Amino acid sequence: MSTNRLESFSDGVIAVAITLLVLNIAVPTARSNQSLAHALGQQWPIYAAYVTSFVTIGIIWINHHTAISRLRCADHMVLVINLLLLMSIAVLPFSTSLMAAYLKASSGQHLAAAVYSGMLLVMSLLFSLLNRHILFAEPDLVGPELSRERRRIILRRGVTGLAPYAVATGLAPVTPYATLAICAAVAAFYALPVAQGN
Amino acid sequence: MSTNRLESFSDGVIAVAITLLVLNIAVPTARSNQSLAHALGQQWPIYAAYVTSFVTIGIIWINHHTAISRLRCADHMVLVINLLLLMSIAVLPFSTSLMAAYLKASSGQHLAAAVYSGMLLVMSLLFSLLNRHILFAEPDLVGPELSRERRRIILRRGVTGLAPYAVATGLAPVTPYATLAICAAVAAFYALPVAQGN
Amino acid sequence: MSTNRLESFSDGVIAVAITLLVLNIAVPTARSNQSLAHALGQQWPIYAAYVTSFVTIGIIWINHHTAISRLRCADHMVLVINLLLLMSIAVLPFSTSLMAAYLKASSGQHLAAAVYSGMLLVMSLLFSLLNRHILFAEPDLVGPELSRERRRIILRRGVTGLAPYAVATGLAPVTPYATLAICAAVAAFYALPVAQGN
Amino acid sequence: MSTNRLESFSDGVIAVAITLLVLNIAVPTARSNQSLAHALGQQWPIYAAYVTSFVTIGIIWINHHTAISRLRCADHMVLVINLLLLMSIAVLPFSTSLMAAYLKASSGQHLAAAVYSGMLLVMSLLFSLLNRHILFAEPDLVGPELSRERRRIILRRGVTGLAPYAVATGLAPVTPYATLAICAAVAAFYALPVAQGN
Repeated sequence: MSTNRLESFSDGVIAVAITLLVLNIAVPTARSNQSLAHALGQQWPIYAAYVTSFVTIGIIWINHHTAISRLRCADHMVLVINLLLLMSIAVLPFSTSLMAAYLKASSGQHLAAAVYSGMLLVMSLLFSLLNRHILFAEPDLVGPELSRERRRIILRRGVTGLAPYAVATGLAPVTPYATLAICAAVAAFYALPVAQGN
Repeated sequence: MSTNRLESFSDGVIAVAITLLVLNIAVPTARSNQSLAHALGQQWPIYAAYVTSFVTIGIIWINHHTAISRLRCADHMVLVINLLLLMSIAVLPFSTSLMAAYLKASSGQHLAAAVYSGMLLVMSLLFSLLNRHILFAEPDLVGPELSRERRRIILRRGVTGLAPYAVATGLAPVTPYATLAICAAVAAFYALPVAQGN
Repeated sequence: MSTNRLESFSDGVIAVAITLLVLNIAVPTARSNQSLAHALGQQWPIYAAYVTSFVTIGIIWINHHTAISRLRCADHMVLVINLLLLMSIAVLPFSTSLMAAYLKASSGQHLAAAVYSGMLLVMSLLFSLLNRHILFAEPDLVGPELSRERRRIILRRGVTGLAPYAVATGLAPVTPYATLAICAAVAAFYALPVAQGN
Repeated sequence: MSTNRLESFSDGVIAVAITLLVLNIAVPTARSNQSLAHALGQQWPIYAAYVTSFVTIGIIWINHHTAISRLRCADHMVLVINLLLLMSIAVLPFSTSLMAAYLKASSGQHLAAAVYSGMLLVMSLLFSLLNRHILFAEPDLVGPELSRERRRIILRRGVTGLAPYAVATGLAPVTPYATLAICAAVAAFYALPVAQGN
């Protein structure tokens, strides 16, 4: 299969998922005993989770594009791992909403945060799997111009990216705020020019 | 009509349908007498139906791509059958939600399961119809390099794929769990490398 | 502006609108005094409106593709009329839902039907406007190979297509069922092979 | 990165956002003491906000296409500013809904209008930032055929476009109707043929 339609379908799923995130931001219903400003302010976990997830999906899209652009042609395994990766992205509107709804709750907040960063961990894991298959499959899907040494560096960088999500998930039972802060920091880091090589 | 825009429109509809599935996964509302873990656990039919439908739509997309890539140009009938096929895919977020909502209910569960696998049966039927028209229309839409024998094999393989959905629908009045299990097994089978030829 | 990105953006909007229609089909909530079969059966206006709107949008997409493919390049007016046409398509999930919700109601059913077919009339009108601008703008957007006589035939055919929607809207105060039946018949007619020339 | 996939992803996000706006138009529930005509009429702020946001997003799409088409290739900064711009567009279904819900309310209407035009101001600001980076980055992303003088004119025109949104936001504490009217007028102005040069 040529990589063109694979890219266009993946672009479609990622574009829909990133845009559906907005459905999580509800318009507060008017109440007599509360101003709109207060009601909007109370919703800050929704905005924080929205921005974090939006930028994270945006970065995954950039990385996905880079990974697929290395392919000369896609085998069945690329299609299947890519489909699982798309599923882990498509599910983010749910886990984002879960995290935002429970961040300030008195119970369930630890589990909600663990689900949120856990899903991001799964997404990064599937991305590394996809990258590993693209770079090291037999017969070679990439072409000889990319040296084995360079491939190892690319893969290692992706695997390193798993660490912060693992830490964020591990911290969820302690405090969900740390989990969200780490996920937001990862998104900000990759958006900064310093991480251009990724 | 060239097949380019046919592909891009079909990709769009399939990408939106597969991503809209996530709207079926509701965030449980906080209740005092129930932990979030319990509430999330109770929702397992939603996750099972979600994964089954997501992978099924993903595989239909791969097969659709293969079928359309054989076309040299599309006639009016291709457009119409393709539109009906897209409708049967676009409706899956509804039937998935119906099945998930009723799987554990004391009444309605058999009908909900029959609707779910019945819709997948209709989708597979329309895909076989599309394939049959592409492969055997007059004048030839494909080109002489694909032998008549090979065309028959391709069509037969698609028709064989109808059988498990017919069985799943037939079993719905007995137990809805068997219906879901068969649909999930079909998705897993086609995702496995062994089914690469499809 | 090249017509490529115009097509891809229009395809995107139409693909999302056609797929969002499914959100109108609600899963009936389980009730003790009513079987699921009965509840699903009660919803038949939703299915009828869904199929009618889905096929109608599908046909508009085919016609849109044909109209845009005649363009050598797009001017500002093409972009603006196209945007209004896309708005009239994007609004169909609402008018479809309105019609389905009120078809069997004791009051409001006439207005709901008039809104539904009225929106389809506006959509067809905007499509004819787009076609008219594409075919008769100065300087010529199409190219000399399409004769003036042929252009008039194409435009006249589109304008003829307005009549059934006008009749359907006119009949809405009498009976909403006739309105829906006419809109469904138009969709079926253009889907049939006999209307291939369109 | 080539600009092709950047365009197709941006097109996807913008197409989904513009089409999701329709979810804000709710079907009025049937009530005995109120006709459907009255209920639909009461909803006029929803229609006004819908049309304004739809046309505004459509114009941003046209401008975005023009800006990206100047690029020879995209650097990391283009991707990041573009992602933030897409976020400011993707959030419009929320701010449109907020404005429509509160326009006629006795409290909260000023804040809702300020949020609405404020988000449009942020969107225009990000678009100007994107344009500035595209036109004046080192090394040159555009190519020598576009003179420095011409670049300054393009950028200045975009920055001038910020003024009405700033005025609209400033007027929100006075009257939310003026805010909506200005935003609608901006959309109409850019849609008119006179603004073709944009």
